[in-house]
Amino acid sequence: MDDGYRKHVVVVGGGFGGLQTAKSLARANVDVTLIDRRNFHLFQPLLYQVATGGLSPANIAAPIRSIFRRQKNVSVVLGDVLDVNPQAQTVSVNLQTSNRLESVRESIAYDFLVVAAGSTNTYFGNDQFESVAPGLKSIEDATEIRKRVLSAFEAAEITDDPKRKQRLLTFVVVGAGPTGVEIAGAIAELARHTLLHDFRNISPEESRVIIIDASARVLAGFKEKLSLKAEQSLTQLEIELQFNTRVKNIQPQFVTVIKDDHTSRIETETVIWAAGVAGVALGKRIALAAGVKCDRSGRVPVEPTLNIHGYPNLFVIGDLAHCENAEGELLPGVAPVAIQQGNYVGNVIRRKVSATISTDDPKPFAYKDRGQLATIGRSAAIADLGKFEFYGFSAWLLWLFIHILSLAKFQNRVLVFFQWAFNYLTFNRSARLITEAGNGSDLRGSVGLDANTLTADDEQPEQSQRH
Amino acid sequence: MDDGYRKHVVVVGGGFGGLQTAKSLARANVDVTLIDRRNFHLFQPLLYQVATGGLSPANIAAPIRSIFRRQKNVSVVLGDVLDVNPQAQTVSVNLQTSNRLESVRESIAYDFLVVAAGSTNTYFGNDQFESVAPGLKSIEDATEIRKRVLSAFEAAEITDDPKRKQRLLTFVVVGAGPTGVEIAGAIAELARHTLLHDFRNISPEESRVIIIDASARVLAGFKEKLSLKAEQSLTQLEIELQFNTRVKNIQPQFVTVIKDDHTSRIETETVIWAAGVAGVALGKRIALAAGVKCDRSGRVPVEPTLNIHGYPNLFVIGDLAHCENAEGELLPGVAPVAIQQGNYVGNVIRRKVSATISTDDPKPFAYKDRGQLATIGRSAAIADLGKFEFYGFSAWLLWLFIHILSLAKFQNRVLVFFQWAFNYLTFNRSARLITEAGNGSDLRGSVGLDANTLTADDEQPEQSQRH
Repeated sequence: MDDGYRKHVVVVGGGFGGLQTAKSLARANVDVTLIDRRNFHLFQPLLYQVATGGLSPANIAAPIRSIFRRQKNVSVVLGDVLDVNPQAQTVSVNLQTSNRLESVRESIAYDFLVVAAGSTNTYFGNDQFESVAPGLKSIEDATEIRKRVLSAFEAAEITDDPKRKQRLLTFVVVGAGPTGVEIAGAIAELARHTLLHDFRNISPEESRVIIIDASARVLAGFKEKLSLKAEQSLTQLEIELQFNTRVKNIQPQFVTVIKDDHTSRIETETVIWAAGVAGVALGKRIALAAGVKCDRSGRVPVEPTLNIHGYPNLFVIGDLAHCENAEGELLPGVAPVAIQQGNYVGNVIRRKVSATISTDDPKPFAYKDRGQLATIGRSAAIADLGKFEFYGFSAWLLWLFIHILSLAKFQNRVLVFFQWAFNYLTFNRSARLITEAGNGSDLRGSVGLDANTLTADDEQPEQSQRH
Repeated sequence: MDDGYRKHVVVVGGGFGGLQTAKSLARANVDVTLIDRRNFHLFQPLLYQVATGGLSPANIAAPIRSIFRRQKNVSVVLGDVLDVNPQAQTVSVNLQTSNRLESVRESIAYDFLVVAAGSTNTYFGNDQFESVAPGLKSIEDATEIRKRVLSAFEAAEITDDPKRKQRLLTFVVVGAGPTGVEIAGAIAELARHTLLHDFRNISPEESRVIIIDASARVLAGFKEKLSLKAEQSLTQLEIELQFNTRVKNIQPQFVTVIKDDHTSRIETETVIWAAGVAGVALGKRIALAAGVKCDRSGRVPVEPTLNIHGYPNLFVIGDLAHCENAEGELLPGVAPVAIQQGNYVGNVIRRKVSATISTDDPKPFAYKDRGQLATIGRSAAIADLGKFEFYGFSAWLLWLFIHILSLAKFQNRVLVFFQWAFNYLTFNRSARLITEAGNGSDLRGSVGLDANTLTADDEQPEQSQRH
């Protein structure tokens, strides 16, 4: 494939940043190895739609290999990056093998390394909350939340205990940022519209949806005027907002919160965590190896040229990077930042390889902020485009337009559009499947060979004691 | 809701038979309780499309509650039916509750009981094969098979061992019935078209796909001429057919087969079981309680009026019933039989309740056989309509037309049509997601609270030792 030695660029992560880096190297005289744990790119901004049954996982995911099928200088490797040695210029990878038969560790040498490994939910030291209050970062998180929300309605339908019924029909979202607002809005619509006629013993529209946040308003990253508009939309959906409130404890049947030194308790069996993200653990290991120190959220500090200080060929971009603009402000962990950074780094590498710029002197990265958007359920949104700001249906149309355009693949765009058009017209959410949490070989291993549990046949109610 | 006492019809199973029974009772003066383990109806004939990445689970599933949202005499209950007492006229159900906190067992009384609990894979006493050779009956089966097939290509891409590479690129399907032929055809197309340009170190088109069957031809339920046409289509897809061959052993890295007393070994890491189904275990318990004996495949024998002998108000229909036509031939386990039986039983019950027929004398059930269809990959199929038989593209168009028309919900029809049109034009299969087998709370429980494994973030390759 190559004539003589070509520089090797290793990209860690197939999210927005990593994908854009590899794409922008299409015409560079380099070999690119893109490493990801998963075989698909995930369009995270729409993950909340999967969690609430509006879209299927495949609608918002695209196989990474097919994205690069025509770009022959990219090899895709499925594996977990364990560590980086910036002195030796190698990454250590656990390669994924079939059927869990074995584990293969390999060391991959690089000339340039771009780490775009992203962020993860953080519980601020309260990791015990995770099992009762899942966050929303992966397809599996989304199908787990979908299962919990739908199962709560199912359990409420059959219980005779009015107190438990109320508890099951109470949904608590921790965090009033974009993810929290989106998922609370979607749950409220599910309850007040989609499920309206589905049950016989409960009235889903009487469900309580509560957002808890430590700050004084929703969407604190937006201008105050837009926050207030978003609050109006949430209140129209009968979502309860509890501000200046901190979570003290989360248990399977209740949440304890503190406001003004006063502790109170919310009875609920469904809690969703949207309170914060932090850089993945790999960031800390890279920082340690390169002699820098992560910020409090586990992000790796980078130079204005996006490389780690002292390592001009080791870049960190996207959610994992602590990158400040010329005014010293931290850039937010959003897709446009990661995409622009990927593009920037790809171009720097291309020009370094073709020697059109001095190795020591690329122009610093400058983020072009085109504004921000957040959506609140069906047909309401807020948009802050710097000079313009607007809200309501027009903002929602803009949100819809941008998200459909941005989806990684043509096919997903078309299908998601039809799915949405249909959902919009009918209030329907057809992807309301409660699928097994522990399927496949794990389950087979543990309960497998009992004749009663041989298969998980969807059409047979037969199959005992799974609870 | 009801004025005075209304007869109570309990339907077990939300498959084709159960759904049709409940629908045909729409205008009957009865209350219907439909019990299923899952919250969705599954369109099983297209499950192989999910297993090979062509469709998403939600494309072929419809929430049962939304199917009956306007039919107010139907209550849907999520639960496992454990047993039936035909003398006391009760069913014992394990109700599904939220978040696995508890298990609630309840006894439900019935005036009429319709058991449509379906079938499950059978390994003919070799249940140890299940973990290495999953069957295809549920959404979870399909995503597990999808994961195994795609992971085999991924592992082949990274292995340096040519023998292992060959083994990973060999796919064995046990059984040459409709399911086996469909899934083998779909895997061959995946390898020969969809994945053609996706890899750098392997040529997916060199994969071997092998069908093993104990009989002498494929699709033995069809006329011999059509079987031969199907064989031609399979051979064009370079699928190897091994007839008169029995499986002796299945291990993680090979299958041992016997033909003419000669034992040989096929090196493979991916085996799919499509060799047979049997009635679910509930059937045996019902038969025992009602004093009848299941056939060798676990089906419950029923009278020509579809009730169990001696129990005029206890019906068994669909795959779980051993029902013979007037000529004494066993009716096949296909959707049209279940649907017609559901319709028949619903009408018998309606007329019994309204007393328009004598309780002891309904007309026997007569199956109207409109023919059968099987598809072999892209644009080939065989159709046997009794008087007419045809094959190739025209049969495939008929197959496509019937399957799109039959899908339970309007929305699924439209989306599946677009998905198919797109796949057909582009050879694409976009739902090629390798998702975690053990996600959700199971996984969290076992590896949960280590900081390295806090979440399963799709964008981060970060996360160690999952193998």
